[in-house]
Amino acid sequence: MNEQNFTMLCDFYQLTMGNGYFKTKHANRIAYFDVFFRRVPENGGFAICAGLEQVIEYIENLRFTEKDIEYLRSKKIFSEEFLEYLRSFKFEGDIWAIPEGTPVFPNEPLITVRAPAIQAQLIETMLLLLVNHQSLIATKANRIVRAAQGRAISEFGSRRAQGTAGAILGARAAYIGGCSGTACVMSDELYGVPATGTMAHSWVQMFDSELEAFEEYCRVYPNGAVLLVDTFNVLKSGVPNAIKAFDNILKPIGTRPVGIRLDSGDIAYLSIEARKMLDEAGYPDCKIIASNSLDEHIIADLIAQGAKIDSFGVGERLITASAEPVFGGVYKLCATEENGVITPKIKISENVVKITNPHFKKTYRIFDKSGKATADLICVHDETIDTSQPLELFDPDFTWKRKTVTDFTARELQVPVFRNGKCVYSSPSIEEIKAYRESQINTLWDSLLRFENPHKYHIDLSLKLWEIKRKLLSGKGE
Amino acid sequence: MNEQNFTMLCDFYQLTMGNGYFKTKHANRIAYFDVFFRRVPENGGFAICAGLEQVIEYIENLRFTEKDIEYLRSKKIFSEEFLEYLRSFKFEGDIWAIPEGTPVFPNEPLITVRAPAIQAQLIETMLLLLVNHQSLIATKANRIVRAAQGRAISEFGSRRAQGTAGAILGARAAYIGGCSGTACVMSDELYGVPATGTMAHSWVQMFDSELEAFEEYCRVYPNGAVLLVDTFNVLKSGVPNAIKAFDNILKPIGTRPVGIRLDSGDIAYLSIEARKMLDEAGYPDCKIIASNSLDEHIIADLIAQGAKIDSFGVGERLITASAEPVFGGVYKLCATEENGVITPKIKISENVVKITNPHFKKTYRIFDKSGKATADLICVHDETIDTSQPLELFDPDFTWKRKTVTDFTARELQVPVFRNGKCVYSSPSIEEIKAYRESQINTLWDSLLRFENPHKYHIDLSLKLWEIKRKLLSGKGE
Repeated sequence: MNEQNFTMLCDFYQLTMGNGYFKTKHANRIAYFDVFFRRVPENGGFAICAGLEQVIEYIENLRFTEKDIEYLRSKKIFSEEFLEYLRSFKFEGDIWAIPEGTPVFPNEPLITVRAPAIQAQLIETMLLLLVNHQSLIATKANRIVRAAQGRAISEFGSRRAQGTAGAILGARAAYIGGCSGTACVMSDELYGVPATGTMAHSWVQMFDSELEAFEEYCRVYPNGAVLLVDTFNVLKSGVPNAIKAFDNILKPIGTRPVGIRLDSGDIAYLSIEARKMLDEAGYPDCKIIASNSLDEHIIADLIAQGAKIDSFGVGERLITASAEPVFGGVYKLCATEENGVITPKIKISENVVKITNPHFKKTYRIFDKSGKATADLICVHDETIDTSQPLELFDPDFTWKRKTVTDFTARELQVPVFRNGKCVYSSPSIEEIKAYRESQINTLWDSLLRFENPHKYHIDLSLKLWEIKRKLLSGKGE
Repeated sequence: MNEQNFTMLCDFYQLTMGNGYFKTKHANRIAYFDVFFRRVPENGGFAICAGLEQVIEYIENLRFTEKDIEYLRSKKIFSEEFLEYLRSFKFEGDIWAIPEGTPVFPNEPLITVRAPAIQAQLIETMLLLLVNHQSLIATKANRIVRAAQGRAISEFGSRRAQGTAGAILGARAAYIGGCSGTACVMSDELYGVPATGTMAHSWVQMFDSELEAFEEYCRVYPNGAVLLVDTFNVLKSGVPNAIKAFDNILKPIGTRPVGIRLDSGDIAYLSIEARKMLDEAGYPDCKIIASNSLDEHIIADLIAQGAKIDSFGVGERLITASAEPVFGGVYKLCATEENGVITPKIKISENVVKITNPHFKKTYRIFDKSGKATADLICVHDETIDTSQPLELFDPDFTWKRKTVTDFTARELQVPVFRNGKCVYSSPSIEEIKAYRESQINTLWDSLLRFENPHKYHIDLSLKLWEIKRKLLSGKGE
C-alpha cells in the first residue's frame, strides 16, 4: 500500500485540461484550489477530517512511468510536448491542511493547494478520494463510539468494504474516529491499528460438538479465549458449554476466560441472561461482546434496554458508513496568481449553497475563555486576528445576526504541509492522531455531539472576505 | 494493483483459528465453503456477479513474507510451528465459481471452495470483499443502464469512491454492468475500461471569459470538444458561447462539435431549451450530456419529462451504490471431508433466512424452449439433470407449490477455476464479460428487470438436497 503509485488515478479531464493548459501557455499560471465539504453526513454537528497522511504519500510518489506515457500516447489526443512534460512531472507547489483528527465544519478549507494550474488540477481526484473516504469513516466511527458511552467498539467490516483500500484505510480512519481496534490484520501491520479476533461459526461446526470446539479453543488460547456462543442455541447450549469449557480447561490451570460473543438473536435479552449465568458460574470478569448489524442507533437502544454488553463489534454499517456512504468533499478553484498578484475566483451557481468562498484563505478557530470552540472564522490569507480586542462575528447569510467575543483565543486550523514541492510536515503517529482527536472533541459543546438536531456551529467570514465575495457576486470583482 | 499481495488482508480470527486447527490436527481436514448472498440490493430482481478475475489474482499471489511472519510473531500467540507452516503457505485446493457478468440469485453458491480447513478459512475475507464490492457496483450500474433505455452511462465517481480500489475496480464493475466508460484513467490503463472526459468548471474560470475558455478548448481539441456550459448561466451565457466557439473555431476548419455538458440546474428544462438552440444554430449532431447527482430514478424521471439528453455521467450514487452500499455476501462452511467421505454441515439460526444450504452442491439454470431462464435448481454435487424427462420443481419453503417443466435445457452455473491449487480457468476479456452479461440478461423475463416489485425468480432445491437439509434441521443428519 505504502509504495503504490496512484498518479494515474485521476479523471481523464484532468489530463485533457492539462494538455490544454500546456498548449495555451496556462501551464505555469498559479492556481489556488480548496478542498471543502458542504454538509455533515447524517446531519451531524461536525465531521472529523482524516486522510492527510495518505495525501502526502500520494504527492511524494507522483510520477508518470514509461508505461503510463505509452498508454496516454495511444489515446492520440495528447501532444508530444505534453507527454514529454509528464515524463518529468512532479508536484512543485504548496499545500496547507487541517491535521487529521480535527473536528471540521462545512465550507472551511480542509486542504488548500497553490501550484501551477496543470499540477494543481491533476491531483484533484486523489485528494478528494482520500479525504472523502477517511473523513467519512472517521466521522461515522465517532458517532458509533459516542453512542457506546465508553464501551469499546471494534471495527469488523473488511468483508463488506468497497475494495481493499476501503477495508485497510477504513480501519485506520475508524481507529482515528475512536474505535479500539479492527479485525483487519493488514491495517495493523501497515498502520498500527490493533487487530484482534477469535473464532467464527465454522470453528464450532468443524468439531463433533460445541463443547469439544470450545474446549479445544481454550486449550490453544488459555489466556485469550473468547467463545462464540450462538451457533446452535445461546442459552441452552452456547453459554452452558462455554462455562463447562472454562471449568474443564481454564480452571485447572488457573487462567481466566476473556469473553463470550453473541452474533444473532435478541442481543439485549440474551446478554442479560448470559450475564447472570456467567456470574453464577463464577465468571463475573468474563466479558460479553456483541455483533450483528450494529450502528449508533442500535447500540444506544441496547444500552437503554439494559443490555449487559461490554464491547461491540461493528461491521458493514461502519466500514461503508451505509446510512450515508458519501462524504461530499469538493475541489474548487478559489484564486489565480500572476506576477505575485492574487486574483480571487468564485464559482456562481443558481443553487446558493454551491456558491464558493473566493480567494486564498485561512481559517481561525475561536475558543472562549473556558477553552470551548465558539466559531470558525474564514479570513483572507493576509489577515490576522488581534485577540486583545473584542471580535465581532456575523452570519455571512443573515448579516444582522451578530455577536461580539471577548477574552478569547484563536488558532489557525491549517498547517503548512508542502512548500515548493517539499514536504514540511511530519505526520503524527496514529496514536497521537487519535489522542488529538479526542482532545479536540473535548473543546466542542455537548450540543454539537448529539445525533438529533445538533447545534449549528458558527462558520463565519471575516468582513474583508465577505466584501470580496459580495463584489464578485455582483459582478464588480473581476 | 495487479501484483499486490493481499495475503494479510484477512480477519485476525482466520489466523487464530488457523493456528488452532494446526494445533488440533484439523489443519488438513478438507472443508467446503460457499460464497452466497441472501437478498438482492434495493429489492431488485437479480444481481450481477463480478470480481472473479481479482479473486484469481489474489489466490495466485497468496504468500506470507518474512515481514508478515515477523509481525505475526510479535503478537506472541502463534506457535513457531504455525509460523513455519505459513512461510510456505499456498492455496492447494479447488475452487468453482459462476463466471463474471452472470445474473445471480439469493442462496445459490457463487463460489465454492474445497481445501484444507486452514487454507479455506484464510481466504474468506478477500473472497467476500472482492465479490461483494464488484457485484454491488455491477448490479447498481445495470439498474442505471436499464433506466437510461439505450442512452450511454459514463461512470464519473472516483472522487467519491471509498478508497482507491473502490474507484478503480468500481469502474471495472460498472463497465461489466453496462456503463459505456469511466472518467478514471487508471481503470482504463489497468483494465481496459474506456476513459473519457473533457473539462471542469476550473477550466472556464481560469480564462478571462467563458467564450475565450471555450474557443481555446476547441482549438486544442477540434475533434473532441465537449463544453461545460453551466459555469455562469446555461441559456444566457453557456450555450450561446458554445455555439459561438463552434462557429468561430470549428466551422472554419470543417470539424463538428461533440457535445455540451449540463452539471446543475433544472436539467430537463435546460436540455430541452439547449437542444433547440443547438438545432437552430446548425448543430443537431451536437450531443447533450447531463450529470449532477443522478441515479436510475432521476434518469427515468428525466426521460419521462422529455429531457433531450443523449448520455449521462453518474458519480457518487453509482460508485458507492449509495442507496444500499452493501452486497451482503457470506462465506459459510457447508461440508467437511475425511478419507473421501463428505459430511454435510448446516448453520442453524433462530432467524430462518440465516439457515444455510448444506453439502457440496452444484446449481443448474433451467431454460425453457424459448431460451428464457425459468428457475435455478440447487443440487447435491453428484446429481445430474436428465433433460429428456419432465422435471418437477418445488418451493423449498412451501413445498406444495410445484411445477413441472418439460422441453427444457439445463446449464451448470459454476465452472472449475482452481484444481489442486492450479488455476484452470482463463478469465475472459472485459469486453467478453460485458457482452456475456448482456446475453445473459436477455435470457431473463422482463418482469425481473423492473425496479418496483420485480418477479421473484425460482431458486429451488433438488429433492435429494432438500431431504438432506430437512434431516440436518431435525437433528437426524449427523
